[in-house]
Amino acid sequence: MKPARLLFDLRRHVASRVVGSVRAFNYDCFADRHIGPSELQKQQMLQYMGFRDLDQLTNTNVPENIKLNDELHLPAALDEWRMLTELREIVSANHVYRSYIGMGFNDCIVPKVIISNLLQNAGWTSPYTPYQPEIAQGRLESLLNFQTMVSDLTGLETSNASLLDEATACAEAACLAARYTKRNTILYDTKLHPQNFAVLKTRAEPLGIKLVPLENVENPSISKDVAGVIVQYPNTEGKVYDLTKLIENTHEAGGLAILACDILSLTMLRSPGELGADIAIGSAQRFGLPLGYGGPHPAFMSVAKTNAKNTLARMMPGRIVGVSRDAQGNPAYRLALQTREQHIRRDKATSNICTAQALPANIAAMYAVYHGPHRLAQIAKNIHKSAAYLAQRYAEAGLTVSHDVYFDTIKVKPKNLTDLRVRSEQKKINLRHFDDGFVGISVDETVLPIDIQDLLYLFAIEEDIKSIEAQTSSTASPLIGNSDHARRTPFLTHEVFNSHHSELQLIRYMKRLENKDLSLVHSMIPLGSCTMKLNASAELIPMSWTRVANIHPFAPIDQTRGFQRIFNDLERWLCEVSGYDNFSLQPNSGANGEYAGLLAIKGYLESIGQEQRKICLIPTSAHGTNPASAHLANFEVKVVESDRHGNINFKDLSAKVDQYKDRLAAIMVTYPSTHGVFESSIVDVCNKVHENGGQVYLDGANFNAQVGLCRPGDYGSDVSHFNLHKTFCIPHGGGGPGAGPIGVKSHLAPFLPGHPLVPLLGRSEGAVAATPWGSSSILTITWAYIRLMGGRGLKEATQMSILNANYMARRLENGGYRIVYKDEQGLNAHEFIIDCKPFKKSAGIDVVDIAKRLMDYGFHSPTMAWPVHDCLMIEPTESESKDEMDRFVDSLIAIREEIRQVENGELDKDVNPLKMAPHTLKVCLDSAWNRPYPRELAAFPKPWCHHKLWPTVGRIDDQFGDRNLVCSCPPVDSYE
Amino acid sequence: MKPARLLFDLRRHVASRVVGSVRAFNYDCFADRHIGPSELQKQQMLQYMGFRDLDQLTNTNVPENIKLNDELHLPAALDEWRMLTELREIVSANHVYRSYIGMGFNDCIVPKVIISNLLQNAGWTSPYTPYQPEIAQGRLESLLNFQTMVSDLTGLETSNASLLDEATACAEAACLAARYTKRNTILYDTKLHPQNFAVLKTRAEPLGIKLVPLENVENPSISKDVAGVIVQYPNTEGKVYDLTKLIENTHEAGGLAILACDILSLTMLRSPGELGADIAIGSAQRFGLPLGYGGPHPAFMSVAKTNAKNTLARMMPGRIVGVSRDAQGNPAYRLALQTREQHIRRDKATSNICTAQALPANIAAMYAVYHGPHRLAQIAKNIHKSAAYLAQRYAEAGLTVSHDVYFDTIKVKPKNLTDLRVRSEQKKINLRHFDDGFVGISVDETVLPIDIQDLLYLFAIEEDIKSIEAQTSSTASPLIGNSDHARRTPFLTHEVFNSHHSELQLIRYMKRLENKDLSLVHSMIPLGSCTMKLNASAELIPMSWTRVANIHPFAPIDQTRGFQRIFNDLERWLCEVSGYDNFSLQPNSGANGEYAGLLAIKGYLESIGQEQRKICLIPTSAHGTNPASAHLANFEVKVVESDRHGNINFKDLSAKVDQYKDRLAAIMVTYPSTHGVFESSIVDVCNKVHENGGQVYLDGANFNAQVGLCRPGDYGSDVSHFNLHKTFCIPHGGGGPGAGPIGVKSHLAPFLPGHPLVPLLGRSEGAVAATPWGSSSILTITWAYIRLMGGRGLKEATQMSILNANYMARRLENGGYRIVYKDEQGLNAHEFIIDCKPFKKSAGIDVVDIAKRLMDYGFHSPTMAWPVHDCLMIEPTESESKDEMDRFVDSLIAIREEIRQVENGELDKDVNPLKMAPHTLKVCLDSAWNRPYPRELAAFPKPWCHHKLWPTVGRIDDQFGDRNLVCSCPPVDSYE
Repeated sequence: MKPARLLFDLRRHVASRVVGSVRAFNYDCFADRHIGPSELQKQQMLQYMGFRDLDQLTNTNVPENIKLNDELHLPAALDEWRMLTELREIVSANHVYRSYIGMGFNDCIVPKVIISNLLQNAGWTSPYTPYQPEIAQGRLESLLNFQTMVSDLTGLETSNASLLDEATACAEAACLAARYTKRNTILYDTKLHPQNFAVLKTRAEPLGIKLVPLENVENPSISKDVAGVIVQYPNTEGKVYDLTKLIENTHEAGGLAILACDILSLTMLRSPGELGADIAIGSAQRFGLPLGYGGPHPAFMSVAKTNAKNTLARMMPGRIVGVSRDAQGNPAYRLALQTREQHIRRDKATSNICTAQALPANIAAMYAVYHGPHRLAQIAKNIHKSAAYLAQRYAEAGLTVSHDVYFDTIKVKPKNLTDLRVRSEQKKINLRHFDDGFVGISVDETVLPIDIQDLLYLFAIEEDIKSIEAQTSSTASPLIGNSDHARRTPFLTHEVFNSHHSELQLIRYMKRLENKDLSLVHSMIPLGSCTMKLNASAELIPMSWTRVANIHPFAPIDQTRGFQRIFNDLERWLCEVSGYDNFSLQPNSGANGEYAGLLAIKGYLESIGQEQRKICLIPTSAHGTNPASAHLANFEVKVVESDRHGNINFKDLSAKVDQYKDRLAAIMVTYPSTHGVFESSIVDVCNKVHENGGQVYLDGANFNAQVGLCRPGDYGSDVSHFNLHKTFCIPHGGGGPGAGPIGVKSHLAPFLPGHPLVPLLGRSEGAVAATPWGSSSILTITWAYIRLMGGRGLKEATQMSILNANYMARRLENGGYRIVYKDEQGLNAHEFIIDCKPFKKSAGIDVVDIAKRLMDYGFHSPTMAWPVHDCLMIEPTESESKDEMDRFVDSLIAIREEIRQVENGELDKDVNPLKMAPHTLKVCLDSAWNRPYPRELAAFPKPWCHHKLWPTVGRIDDQFGDRNLVCSCPPVDSYE
Repeated sequence: MKPARLLFDLRRHVASRVVGSVRAFNYDCFADRHIGPSELQKQQMLQYMGFRDLDQLTNTNVPENIKLNDELHLPAALDEWRMLTELREIVSANHVYRSYIGMGFNDCIVPKVIISNLLQNAGWTSPYTPYQPEIAQGRLESLLNFQTMVSDLTGLETSNASLLDEATACAEAACLAARYTKRNTILYDTKLHPQNFAVLKTRAEPLGIKLVPLENVENPSISKDVAGVIVQYPNTEGKVYDLTKLIENTHEAGGLAILACDILSLTMLRSPGELGADIAIGSAQRFGLPLGYGGPHPAFMSVAKTNAKNTLARMMPGRIVGVSRDAQGNPAYRLALQTREQHIRRDKATSNICTAQALPANIAAMYAVYHGPHRLAQIAKNIHKSAAYLAQRYAEAGLTVSHDVYFDTIKVKPKNLTDLRVRSEQKKINLRHFDDGFVGISVDETVLPIDIQDLLYLFAIEEDIKSIEAQTSSTASPLIGNSDHARRTPFLTHEVFNSHHSELQLIRYMKRLENKDLSLVHSMIPLGSCTMKLNASAELIPMSWTRVANIHPFAPIDQTRGFQRIFNDLERWLCEVSGYDNFSLQPNSGANGEYAGLLAIKGYLESIGQEQRKICLIPTSAHGTNPASAHLANFEVKVVESDRHGNINFKDLSAKVDQYKDRLAAIMVTYPSTHGVFESSIVDVCNKVHENGGQVYLDGANFNAQVGLCRPGDYGSDVSHFNLHKTFCIPHGGGGPGAGPIGVKSHLAPFLPGHPLVPLLGRSEGAVAATPWGSSSILTITWAYIRLMGGRGLKEATQMSILNANYMARRLENGGYRIVYKDEQGLNAHEFIIDCKPFKKSAGIDVVDIAKRLMDYGFHSPTMAWPVHDCLMIEPTESESKDEMDRFVDSLIAIREEIRQVENGELDKDVNPLKMAPHTLKVCLDSAWNRPYPRELAAFPKPWCHHKLWPTVGRIDDQFGDRNLVCSCPPVDSYE
């Protein structure tokens, strides 16, 4: 334990590329590892663009009046080895206690085969959300397993593919019930987990949803204005209710019954479906996800089949994987009902959910695949028996145990609370402490006889381990035997949950799925606005360290000093990078951050007596989540037009500001614009809004183009969210986890999210996520990234991302594509849009044909049809080397040539490589090939295609799948 | 720190499958995860075979007189979580000091990108030795990179693909020189690393090679009988010699100059090639391999081009990757000169090397690919400058520094040795202590200014870090500037070392190579005698723990109490499993173990005055390493015939024993036989040999069929080696690392290997490996496996491996294949041989055609043409499930049907899917396909082939490659 000295020394080393000077110790420079192009390639690209150096380039396209004329004041860069040494010392201040706090978070045994081959495998961590399903069948299958698992365990027809956390899932369920019933009263169980209620409250208020406590859960009267009833099952004290009457009465009143479930308990308890509930939500954390001091954890939602149209399922928020068919008629997976998603619905949106928890959901699904129904039931039974044994022994010792029927959690009153606290500290055990002097104990999968011994010892009960072992199995327990509460229906009956129980089988299954999916390990994923950059191995390691992974989110603060130091560093560094004064790390996604930011604006306006300000201006080009979040925060969205250069139409903006002057709350603007341009008017826009009493929300999705060059907090913005999973190297995980911290100027700080269980100094009362710092464990990734890069490294990364984008744009322009928008100097920021509209008329080629054809070239499509229809938006990021970008550009130019051949009749109008794309191996190998173009053109249009990742299904029919919604694993014989 | 209590508790839990009884806590049963077939599948297979249960099966085929009528007395099984908890506590007794001991082992910074994506990736750890090159081009390319790296740095024409360790490499080099020159005197530098000399000595003695100390290294006189001169460069004290005269004189005398090199120093020093040396050897450990308390580390050997025939290269031991061409004329890699290998040469062998260090060599190669020449040179320069700074400051302080010219190691005399020892302990630093009161300090890549500060402090020199930083770069250093010793030639100029310096580029490169290779993550690798079983993730994790990975092999024993406990456990457990009394964990491979075992026999016979006993009987069916090892240990090999059932011909044995009665030293016998049969005569064989004064060496290669059923130590064997990389779950790594501990009855124990630096109580003086416990870090894998399985789990694994093999044999027999050998009951042990000879005559189909055709079905071939020509030997192991075995059997049956079609003319005699196999994607997709069978038959003969791993090259022409030996990376344009 000698952190201070070593840290002092580590701090002073600066990486070579960044300093470039002669030093005694030229350590490895992480920026060189993170930034793709070599020095030579950089020079070649600068020359191609006609610039002397990076500074000349970015000085040209960043507007003069926003430039940061200073270095970033961050600790000098460390190489990965020294970074890890420093971080290891920091987290040595975290202390891992055995935590029986429960409240929806339970320690579990994470099978190493899943950790090694999934969580720590770039093939699983680095892919994008599966919007291109032909090269994403692997993780789509795994997410479908997740849905099937949730549907089976909850006994409800349709599940989504994960939500951010259980608390937001509660809120989403309440909103869903309100929407579905068109009513606005929600009855809630007062024994919800406190954080669930806190987020429910935050979310309900702006939407005018009335929350009324449920008086008598087991036999309540429900009035006809009730949209839904939400109950924790088992409740936060561990009690298992008899919900028969509640659900009956709710249905009679025309409302929906929502159960917030413990997923493992459902292997023993009657499922929500059996009970007749309409919606189930919960967290699948205890299915193989580390506690991680808060996450990331996959929440879930499933809904009953309500009618022939399956309306409830279609109204459900979040992504849903569905089964459809491909061009050859084979079954194939894809995201169903995408038209519901936020980028389409905009201000009509009912949820702003975008990022999910794909990677954690995949881990939970694999946990179920690995264990299967019998082993899961056994795990639950072990836990239940242990809880029952504790309850019995406590009762025998004369202690009050609150509830008779429970699964894993008991509430008990110690005779001497002070003594118990001393003993807990001595044994390094955390319990839950209720205000009434009771304590809560939640037993989990890791509990051994020795732990039971210690849990007895805390209450001054001495018992030897042999007797514990001998008696536990024979203890009467409330859910075993003839209990009314016991589950009688089977679950996880599908073959996938009954075939991969040996390690070798599971590895092969995971590998087979992995090898169907295109990820960053194969080739670039140039998704405009999504910033698919490198996530270095060294950045991803700390989240698996015991002192990071194994800490309960509500562990006492003095056990988490290491985390506090990390949060503190991160907040300071993000302030330095963004120009803001304060940060909240709580939001679990960009959209969640937007929402929290808008609430801060709302709180501020109310605090200065301006609660009438409800208008939120949003440019047409905005991310769809912007209006959706504004809607959820009860702002009225007014759209600002773009001019023909794609910039905010300042005239229209002025007019709207003037028009709504007294009611203007905010503008939400993305910078650089979603059109990939540094708009020069940004300062004027901010000023105009401020002059008229509004606040500026600057969407940080494109922050990768700003770091080190300009700072939103300097040039007029009041609040932003930052997608750590874009700019700051948290891997995309195939669609989550995300992290969307918000930065604010100081006047908004008091309105940043708080937490009901962990007091956050100077923050509001409302929470937007289940845990105070969101998905704490992955914040180490961003900490590591900033620590590795240093200020100059970060700046150079930004500059390279801009150079890369402009180089690609210029090459594509020279190769026959029109760049839709540029700035006055003819430059782009870190991304750009190419126009594919003309090909529709000239050759009948849609943008989707180009996207699918790119798969044949071995690449993932750029962002398609957003923010401009019939266009592709390309963002290379700084991590891609010139070779890779050249391969991608050459592919697009070759495709342009194929289009020309369609135009001039050399290729058939209907049966050509573009319309038929993507080509599977099976199609290309078919003896009966009778297409008017050669197989080789289909399969190997470029030399590097010989080691490309092949699409495993042909083009998928989305409409068919949406008409015939199937959202759980189809029977095996349907593949024949 | 409370291991005792927790351990006590952990020990008592027994996995459910194994016990099967009702217990309070049904923990996860690792045996269920390790053993592939489910309970149902097991029953199906037993039924198919007509057995009631596993015991009935194995009671039938294990001879009555060798059966173990007891349980294995091992600690009860733990699940993986509890096993890791226990092992973590054990290794907490290891203490990680900063070690500047050097002696060929230097700490280094292991890039996390390589750890995560290669070392901890089953795609790299689980493949077999690349004997089937068409599905192994990835690791062959990587090993070729290793060879190129070694050739470049040593400046010598041809390198092999790794050797076991530097010490054995020294011995191999000396033997090579003796063979090449046909002389038998080796002059050695007395400043060789002591362990290098120790192994050289062990190996030279039985071969009659005379070792003579070299008097004046820089100007020696060399007589005409000298085969070679071997010098450490720099020497063990750090001195860099001027070797011009030595090499000149050696060549004049007709001898060879051998340099044992520090690979990193070669980036700064004149290379062996420049100096005119003939052979270079060394260890590539400091290129990214953890110290691991001894390994595994890749050693290397490279040789000069001696004449047009490249004789020295062709005589070099170890595997060599070479470039050849495939059936389509494309360049393709494969193991060159395989006819030299031990299984062909048998008693004419000149080396018994079989296992290499493939995985460590790949790591070292990737380290070079990642850093490239410039960064490697920078790392070396940092180290050199630091050493120079230390030397200068010591000298200024009035201390004696021994040598003027050095790279990273200095020898210095402290004023007060006691004070230095106290200060070292206080700072937790290990130095090397010489007998003359000097200490050695070897600087490595991890050294920071603070470490330099501490290294000064040990000698009572106080200096602040700023001044260290400021002065280090300006310190004069012996190899920088106009030094005669400085390297002037370029190295690592090939594109591969200059293209993958960013993390993303390296990940993609590693992934591209990985995806060319068939490994256990894809499908079964049923290699008879090689036991390619599952290596669980949990088993592989501990070797990367800091307290396992970062310990110098010559660290003081009291820093390694955790390791000592692991060795102790392992030795006890292996004794229990094998019936032996003592174990040595030192040998780094099976063949190395054989050699050590034979030396023990030799030592014993000499100790009882029976040194005339030199005859070693070896059955015809033996592994080729048996006679090779016997030859190296100076035994005279006499072959014992087999009878027509493949068993040892007892009559012939008796005759030979009687004939050589007085000179009989030993018999080497494999059990169950290499023909896959439990020979019932084994006890008689042992008795017969013992009665006539001989010792029994039982080759443990097939021990997977014995564990828990019978024990060599019980039924008459005196000594065995056990391949931990077969039976005990160390992954094959694509051809190493291996581990070949030997067990002996107590009379042989005093003759087990010792070590010159670490006294091993009651052992001999001779060492067979560089470090006392061989590759210590991977011994944790075996520890974990035994701890996870427990005695009953191990036994069930054995029984299942036997059931699996017999099930496959029976199905194949019913499908038209003849099983070559069975026991009297018609059963096999854990492997069996199918006869492919008849197809040669009936259809012109060779066994190699079947092997290659299996690739089209998605499988790796079984062992080909060994131990019986024109046959395949199949070993499924217990880890394969029935589904997978059925797929494999169905493939072989389908191939039998294809052969039938050739026989009856339905398929062309020359152009058929067997002769043309394997089929690459490119071939199958060729528009000009004009073969008389359909593409689909080539590509997808079975439904599961749609997700098979495709061979990336066509059938490889071995002869072409051997005639035109190319063993380093070919220029990139040769691929066009």
